[in-house]
Amino acid sequence: MDNLECLFCVKAFPLDVFRPFCPECGEPLLVHRMPGRPRAFHAEGRLAIEIFSDFLPLSKIDRGLSLGEGDTPLLELSRLRMKYDLPPVFAKNEAQNPTGSFKDRGTVVAVQKARELGYNRIGTISTGNMAGSTAAYAAKAEMKSVIFVKGDTPRDKLLAAGVYGTLLIKVKGAYGDLFRKSFEVGRAHEIYFMNSVDPFRIEGYKTAGFEIFLQNSGRAPDFIFVPVSAGGHLVGLMRAFQDLKAEKLISRMPVFVAVQASGCAPLARAFARGKETPASVPNPRTVAHAISNPTPPGGRLVLKLIQENRGMILGVSEAEIRKAHRLLAEHEGLFCDPASATALAGFLRLHRQRMFNPRSRSVLMITGSGLKAIEAVEPARINLHETTVDRLEKFVSSVIS
Amino acid sequence: MDNLECLFCVKAFPLDVFRPFCPECGEPLLVHRMPGRPRAFHAEGRLAIEIFSDFLPLSKIDRGLSLGEGDTPLLELSRLRMKYDLPPVFAKNEAQNPTGSFKDRGTVVAVQKARELGYNRIGTISTGNMAGSTAAYAAKAEMKSVIFVKGDTPRDKLLAAGVYGTLLIKVKGAYGDLFRKSFEVGRAHEIYFMNSVDPFRIEGYKTAGFEIFLQNSGRAPDFIFVPVSAGGHLVGLMRAFQDLKAEKLISRMPVFVAVQASGCAPLARAFARGKETPASVPNPRTVAHAISNPTPPGGRLVLKLIQENRGMILGVSEAEIRKAHRLLAEHEGLFCDPASATALAGFLRLHRQRMFNPRSRSVLMITGSGLKAIEAVEPARINLHETTVDRLEKFVSSVIS
Repeated sequence: MDNLECLFCVKAFPLDVFRPFCPECGEPLLVHRMPGRPRAFHAEGRLAIEIFSDFLPLSKIDRGLSLGEGDTPLLELSRLRMKYDLPPVFAKNEAQNPTGSFKDRGTVVAVQKARELGYNRIGTISTGNMAGSTAAYAAKAEMKSVIFVKGDTPRDKLLAAGVYGTLLIKVKGAYGDLFRKSFEVGRAHEIYFMNSVDPFRIEGYKTAGFEIFLQNSGRAPDFIFVPVSAGGHLVGLMRAFQDLKAEKLISRMPVFVAVQASGCAPLARAFARGKETPASVPNPRTVAHAISNPTPPGGRLVLKLIQENRGMILGVSEAEIRKAHRLLAEHEGLFCDPASATALAGFLRLHRQRMFNPRSRSVLMITGSGLKAIEAVEPARINLHETTVDRLEKFVSSVIS
Repeated sequence: MDNLECLFCVKAFPLDVFRPFCPECGEPLLVHRMPGRPRAFHAEGRLAIEIFSDFLPLSKIDRGLSLGEGDTPLLELSRLRMKYDLPPVFAKNEAQNPTGSFKDRGTVVAVQKARELGYNRIGTISTGNMAGSTAAYAAKAEMKSVIFVKGDTPRDKLLAAGVYGTLLIKVKGAYGDLFRKSFEVGRAHEIYFMNSVDPFRIEGYKTAGFEIFLQNSGRAPDFIFVPVSAGGHLVGLMRAFQDLKAEKLISRMPVFVAVQASGCAPLARAFARGKETPASVPNPRTVAHAISNPTPPGGRLVLKLIQENRGMILGVSEAEIRKAHRLLAEHEGLFCDPASATALAGFLRLHRQRMFNPRSRSVLMITGSGLKAIEAVEPARINLHETTVDRLEKFVSSVIS
């Protein structure tokens, strides 16, 4: 029997997948950690969900529901380090997951839980990464999936999720209303809506944290920069390091730096003003679509956890995001979406503010593939020329330096 | 000192990166395998190029030039197996490489070789996968890159390569002429053009073959299906299993099945007619753009190797490709490009022709991400509806089955 807990009311509640929020205060519930036998990694496992199964709330692992998520590279950003005289900085490239984003780690765990609980229908609300991930894993699990998207979702995003045979419904109305409504629809039709702050999805994100620990020679990095929308990814990563601390594998937590785009930064604003509750953003406007969430459902939880762990929440400008996006591609060969670039933008901001010592080790979470946001590449930025085969050699002479 | 060899003339030649073709017969040269000390896997390595370094023609491995390529999942296609009562079939998902295609395994080796030989400029000819891969690795290596693309290359493909800061040149003229011309330009400007049949690129593709062997419990699968354009990928995979055989790790080679789209199938046509040389295809027309190559430079080599290894070359129809593309997404959660889907199409063709026994194990090479070919998803195929938040619950009742 699964129990969830509210970190605000400090109480446990039985699982209700159609209402994963505290019945008393309305905040997102998290999986309750039961004290028990020591947990360990199973290095002989092939998949992340096998290697880290002791830390996941699943009664068994069904590898047939996996698409090969996890085990993503941790890349040293050696060129940028040299260029800007930076302390050691690494990118955890979650864009190399099966559907091109970090969501897959959460989806695979939530889908396993759905199967365990006997649900054959799953759903989510999304404009991008979550839609593709949920639809793909539903297909693999032979489950029906329903995805609610905003009315203005671009056609390419619809195609990239619709390709899996999911039922896509464009819904006119406010995102916050839709979020609440999804759980009602779920209850009425037995559809498990695994939205952004689903407690099992969050547990799945922990596997990236464990990998970072292992890839960093069995130590916690000093800083982890995470692009934040609703905050599920951040909460999952924090929980991974809390688990490692509970198992005495690390002695202190990394400093978590949540990063938002200033154009839609309800959490960064609340943090800067010392508030516990984010205010809704009236006119979100940023190139970082994947983290443009004006009413993050897990907002209070993120603020609380960041405060308790002495973390930070930054808002970075469009210019900083665009610059970071360009730097990652041109110097590190990493083409990510603009949301991912906020992590580097936040890191560079703190570097300018002399927040690091020369040996501080930072990890930037690269959350999604640039292939999902081609429109963010400015045509003026590419170095494009035109000629004919006959004139080619001469032409190259004239343009190559 | 690197030596290359011509499999037709059975002769070795010293390496000339500006002319990786036999001076006598004009066919592509391959890395000459020197008899020497036994080679082994280095399981303690983190990257594919480290684990399989004994089998790569590099004097040392510089992990700073890696983007985390390799170590891709081998997924059992259990849903399709059930649905069609198939023998065991697996997908090697090369779309999970850093730039979304198998090319990265070849590029990382060719770039290491370029560095070893002292070149600071690299280039390629491409309309898609190769452009992004070469540009990304050049960025990581701090090398200048030059990419020649066809005049009609769509804007999104230009952006996805241009983002890395490469010099993109649209060239009007025939592809075959451009291919030859690239080496002249390379010699004149000290640009190492690592095109489709570059001998070091081909060696890099071997790492996927070694992984398949390990993931298949240290055995060769019975069949490997490979989408084929110029054939570099296929040749690399064959060489991996030849190496395994030379090291006595396997006793017999898998049967290699090269698959082309009938709309541009110079090799499948030549194979069907028992010819040794492919004829150029006048009007290539297929949705599988990534393998639409009317004049494959390694064509004779592919025909020779397939003959010698008792493999096959199939041409599959547009309808077969579209169906396979849909099946992979809707039943296996795998969204690949149409070129990759030809592998499943070929497999299903042979299954219908009763070529397999019930225990035959097949591996399908998934060569590129569906995110790179969104235009291949037919809008009519997706299940899209529209409603409002207020009507949502009723609406879902009416559409869900």
